[in-house]
Amino acid sequence: MNEITMHEVGLRDGLQIEKQVVPLEKKIAWVDALLAAGIKIVQLGSFVNPEKVPQMADTDKLFAHFGQPGKTPAAAVLSGLVLNEKGLERGMECGVGMFCMGVSASDTHSRKNTGKGTEEAVGQIIAMAQAALKAQKRVQVSIQSAFGCGFEGPIPPERVLSIVDRYLAAGIRNISLADTAGHAYPPQVESLYAEILKRDGKVELACHFHNTYGLGLANCYAAMRSGVKYFESALGGLGGCPFTKVAAGNVCTEDLVHSLQRQGLAGEIDLEKLVETARDLGRFFNRELPGFILKAGSIVHFEKAQ
Amino acid sequence: MNEITMHEVGLRDGLQIEKQVVPLEKKIAWVDALLAAGIKIVQLGSFVNPEKVPQMADTDKLFAHFGQPGKTPAAAVLSGLVLNEKGLERGMECGVGMFCMGVSASDTHSRKNTGKGTEEAVGQIIAMAQAALKAQKRVQVSIQSAFGCGFEGPIPPERVLSIVDRYLAAGIRNISLADTAGHAYPPQVESLYAEILKRDGKVELACHFHNTYGLGLANCYAAMRSGVKYFESALGGLGGCPFTKVAAGNVCTEDLVHSLQRQGLAGEIDLEKLVETARDLGRFFNRELPGFILKAGSIVHFEKAQ
Repeated sequence: MNEITMHEVGLRDGLQIEKQVVPLEKKIAWVDALLAAGIKIVQLGSFVNPEKVPQMADTDKLFAHFGQPGKTPAAAVLSGLVLNEKGLERGMECGVGMFCMGVSASDTHSRKNTGKGTEEAVGQIIAMAQAALKAQKRVQVSIQSAFGCGFEGPIPPERVLSIVDRYLAAGIRNISLADTAGHAYPPQVESLYAEILKRDGKVELACHFHNTYGLGLANCYAAMRSGVKYFESALGGLGGCPFTKVAAGNVCTEDLVHSLQRQGLAGEIDLEKLVETARDLGRFFNRELPGFILKAGSIVHFEKAQ
Repeated sequence: MNEITMHEVGLRDGLQIEKQVVPLEKKIAWVDALLAAGIKIVQLGSFVNPEKVPQMADTDKLFAHFGQPGKTPAAAVLSGLVLNEKGLERGMECGVGMFCMGVSASDTHSRKNTGKGTEEAVGQIIAMAQAALKAQKRVQVSIQSAFGCGFEGPIPPERVLSIVDRYLAAGIRNISLADTAGHAYPPQVESLYAEILKRDGKVELACHFHNTYGLGLANCYAAMRSGVKYFESALGGLGGCPFTKVAAGNVCTEDLVHSLQRQGLAGEIDLEKLVETARDLGRFFNRELPGFILKAGSIVHFEKAQ
């Protein structure tokens, strides 16, 4: 079995759709809890226009806070999403550890999300990724709507793979496929990752699924079988892209960790702490979050008792 | 890819936990809709003490209704769950097409559910199954709590396989593994079915998962990969065994059919009709059911349009 690294994206992909703005102190408390629970990569936010997405207005401050000595465990990585050169510049200034950036394989989604078509966006993102790599930064590039689009419907795998080819040709080998619309289904997941690995067996694969149609954990299992190492998810199952057609939550972090621990993986993560933090998110937003473990409770203690 | 047969168990495993008794006419309307939607096997109910489970008091009447000429499509099979000899006798009298019966691999769950330990129950169920087979009836035997028990925790695979061995030795080759407590996780599912197929490559495999920890569809995918042909599920994701510790719904029929149709399977089923019927269940019980397609809507039209 491959080693799994959890990448918490709840503070970005979880919060950006929420109307109630989360105060900086609350975000810090949640990130502290995530790091204490042993999550390896935590995405603190995105660098976007604060007037357009007020929820992300304090991303720079969050990085500044966690850049202070002793605030972040040595093994942890803090990632930030950048959409353009201005965002990259801000991220460089405030000490982002891992830059995430990507393009949508759906032209319609790409235009709605960034104002640019896929073709134009690929060139821009590759230039940004190369600049960040040159500055010795860790970089992950993604392809959104890789498994289907709420507007366009099916996305031909060739379209996704042509973007992968351009990433690989540019020397970028940490690649995430994002299922923005939640359209992915397990055999499709296995087949698309297998095609990438045929091109380059050493590429570092990441996945990002939404649970729109109930297949989030099934797709994670398919991704794990395919050799994917980095799993992006959101505490409580928060989230959804505001620029997609049917928005629904990310794969729920504590549900995924629970299922991994059931099979003897991710043992370094403190699941109880994750569940407590997810409960706090639910209290903050004052509603029931979609996660299953929040309702049913964990059963990993059965394994530990053996 | 193997051929998939859906086995709707919502009228039994879905309703038995509901306090609001469903009138016979309503059940008939739901079964009519399921049959019209192309579901191959529909479980009409169980044969239990009507005083203990009033929701199942009209099972004999339902079979009598659907036994009338023209009420059931020729290709459809109506199944009934029997727990003891008295139930078998009632089922024989009212024209059950397929008898379902089983034992729990968890001694604690077995005693709570039937008053008998696993060992005693296996002998009884095998005798009943053989009697039904002798009467030329279709029979499916199951092992409940096959992947874990809310009371006992993990169930050793050897325990499940020893029951399988006894079923096979008795000449019964249609075997369902039921995840009553929802504890199953995908690699466990693949491994347990593989062990059964090592014993007899021609056994007809069925699965029955609950979505307690969010892994229902992931486990179905693992089962499909393992060669399982019969999938038990409940419309709207209703259900849960009243004699288990954390009760949660069955795998949701329309969500499973949706995911199958996304991958080109189960094309004979009218998904829209299933969704309409699930909506009617929600209206009847006056609450939001757990199914995902009920909320997000179907996206199989994208495939059909291509």
